[in-house]
Amino acid sequence: MHNIGLMGFGTVGTGVYEIINNKKGNFHKNFPNTTITKILVQNLNKDRKVICDKSILTNQADDLLNDSNIHTLIFNMGGLEPSFSYMQKAILKGKNIITANKAVVAPNLKFLTDLANKHNVHFLYEASTGGGIPIIGPLKKQLHINEVTHISGILNGTCNYILSKMFSSDSSFADTLKDAQDLGFAEADPTDDVDAYDTSRKIGILSSIAYKTPIDLNHVSTRGIRSISAVDVEFLKSKNATLKLLGISALENDHYAIMAEPVVVSNSNNLSLVDDAFNQVNFHGSLIQDLSFKGLGAGQFPTANAIVCDLMDILSASDNFHTDFSNDNIKHDSSILSFSYYVRFTLKDEYIDNNFLNIIGQSFDEPFELLHEGSNYYIKTSIKTRDHISELVNKLSEYCSSYFYAALLDSNLAVI
Amino acid sequence: MHNIGLMGFGTVGTGVYEIINNKKGNFHKNFPNTTITKILVQNLNKDRKVICDKSILTNQADDLLNDSNIHTLIFNMGGLEPSFSYMQKAILKGKNIITANKAVVAPNLKFLTDLANKHNVHFLYEASTGGGIPIIGPLKKQLHINEVTHISGILNGTCNYILSKMFSSDSSFADTLKDAQDLGFAEADPTDDVDAYDTSRKIGILSSIAYKTPIDLNHVSTRGIRSISAVDVEFLKSKNATLKLLGISALENDHYAIMAEPVVVSNSNNLSLVDDAFNQVNFHGSLIQDLSFKGLGAGQFPTANAIVCDLMDILSASDNFHTDFSNDNIKHDSSILSFSYYVRFTLKDEYIDNNFLNIIGQSFDEPFELLHEGSNYYIKTSIKTRDHISELVNKLSEYCSSYFYAALLDSNLAVI
Repeated sequence: MHNIGLMGFGTVGTGVYEIINNKKGNFHKNFPNTTITKILVQNLNKDRKVICDKSILTNQADDLLNDSNIHTLIFNMGGLEPSFSYMQKAILKGKNIITANKAVVAPNLKFLTDLANKHNVHFLYEASTGGGIPIIGPLKKQLHINEVTHISGILNGTCNYILSKMFSSDSSFADTLKDAQDLGFAEADPTDDVDAYDTSRKIGILSSIAYKTPIDLNHVSTRGIRSISAVDVEFLKSKNATLKLLGISALENDHYAIMAEPVVVSNSNNLSLVDDAFNQVNFHGSLIQDLSFKGLGAGQFPTANAIVCDLMDILSASDNFHTDFSNDNIKHDSSILSFSYYVRFTLKDEYIDNNFLNIIGQSFDEPFELLHEGSNYYIKTSIKTRDHISELVNKLSEYCSSYFYAALLDSNLAVI
Repeated sequence: MHNIGLMGFGTVGTGVYEIINNKKGNFHKNFPNTTITKILVQNLNKDRKVICDKSILTNQADDLLNDSNIHTLIFNMGGLEPSFSYMQKAILKGKNIITANKAVVAPNLKFLTDLANKHNVHFLYEASTGGGIPIIGPLKKQLHINEVTHISGILNGTCNYILSKMFSSDSSFADTLKDAQDLGFAEADPTDDVDAYDTSRKIGILSSIAYKTPIDLNHVSTRGIRSISAVDVEFLKSKNATLKLLGISALENDHYAIMAEPVVVSNSNNLSLVDDAFNQVNFHGSLIQDLSFKGLGAGQFPTANAIVCDLMDILSASDNFHTDFSNDNIKHDSSILSFSYYVRFTLKDEYIDNNFLNIIGQSFDEPFELLHEGSNYYIKTSIKTRDHISELVNKLSEYCSSYFYAALLDSNLAVI
């Protein structure tokens, strides 16, 4: 008999309940003695879309945290607090933790892993990254054989939906965001998604595991998709390329760099074919070489499925590929991730004269390619560090009504 | 202390030796007490590319099969026999089996699984399908939650290399095969690969696991890539499509159909971007929805890595998602996999007149689209079963010097 408590009963929590207590899918056949016995909700009287025994609902977290008959707590609440405090308390009480909450996991991965190890319980978070894609478990396993030195991926379904729609319908960021919000693909406050904080946390989690050291999220270069305009979409489409918000991470000689930024992807790269709510994670291992995993990055049952995968690892005693965060030699060095960049400057009316070409020429000391159409200047730079490109663009931004820049995933891509 | 015997010491066996005994990668740090103690070779005196203690080589299989100090045997020998007999003997002697040998695994999956279960040992075969891609383990795990009803994939690196080259260089099948043989990407006798027997075995293995019943390989519709001509390549390229040898399998209402055949894939499908030696496996689970895994389908270290993954599951007691082959209700029904087809007829000189259009019209009773260029007739059919299309094409083949047909993965693809 294994008793579960659900901390949160929203979309994903309801999905978990359907699988475990309402016997959706095959889980109940293989683990018939597993039951959700208590559920923390905000509102006891809210109508639920799921057939559920109301007597197991409570609005008191302590009813679950102090229940010695509960073996595993599944956290589906968003935000850092109170989830983080509850998780610590639960671990101290000897309960396993499973969570999809990257806001807690990303900054506290080592802390919670160590705490769980100390108290001999499991701390698992497959659903925190890549939604339904089984990536955390396979990555941990491969690290027992391989050094993993590169990770890249599309990790945020909301941004991927918005960018896919901008490229398929030539509409603006603002209009597409509004549509996404109306359809439920974006939150009323979309900051976490469109400003790339969510992607930053997820590539941070993957990199922490792969490089065996807790990553300081301040070291993840994070830039969102708000400044992409229809002009960029039109221009890049004509060059057989697209824009994706990517998490990218690399390790070289004990130095790492990580970014969560919009990136120009050629239509011949399979990341360009990851549409709408799909996510993809690629990593490179020293022996296995290149691996890619693609699946739904969100959604009720894909995410609930990832949570139940973690639960199965606990129930079947298969959570045996422990995470090692003891690599203390590793240092941050942003210059490891250098790219050729696509830059678009749209000049303010008062600066529309040929002089801007000279100003660009003086700023971009190294060779670059340029295309000039009306007030829009499109540039492909030589290989630059992110610090360098951001300084350059910043310097020229005073002349511009708007601008946008993005790394080229493949520096050979002919965007000009 | 866990002792390993290697049955075969070719490319992959040598890779396994490098990882375990020569401490390549991280495995030895995590499992320091695991050693290869005996190796079966054909020729004791052959020069080896690996630094290796010659005293552990033997040319007598019984030296390993009868060694009570060996806990696990890793089979890298090709062909059905003597591997199959050796595996049975080893299981009876209480040894775990790990193998990449799909010629043994595909027809004997249930038999060897049952035998291993009876004798309380592990029988694992991650490397038999998809090479380095971790697919067997994740599929078994997902089946504990999901019903898996669709599988598709590029499973043979040799064919994928040949087809990629035919499409990138517009060269003929015969020339490309010869190049592939010269470069070591194809065997001197390429039958197993280019006639799709290898793909047939692999989609058979995946389907047996997914549908929980041993698949009779005679039920896998198997057709290779020999009859693809440069004419097809040129025509399909102009339609933004490509050809891939796919394994495809579907389950509907307890009836299944499986094929290993060339398929027309749109350039907007990510299978079209799986080039050269890469493999990709897609499957659909009832809760997790669509998942794709891409990686190297062959190669020394990717394949050795897959074998060592199996070994880790044994060593860490994580091989807990047992395979169930008890689904006796499932029946074969080839009509479940129906497609719109691309057909190319190249007429014999004596039949080059307009009459052939009438003959086609009489044969293809349902509407079809046709394009006629010289002696070549290109047709897109309505949705047909494989039995129906093969009967139609067969009937018309007497008028043709050559012909080729392939299912359209997406029936909406405009190939005419």
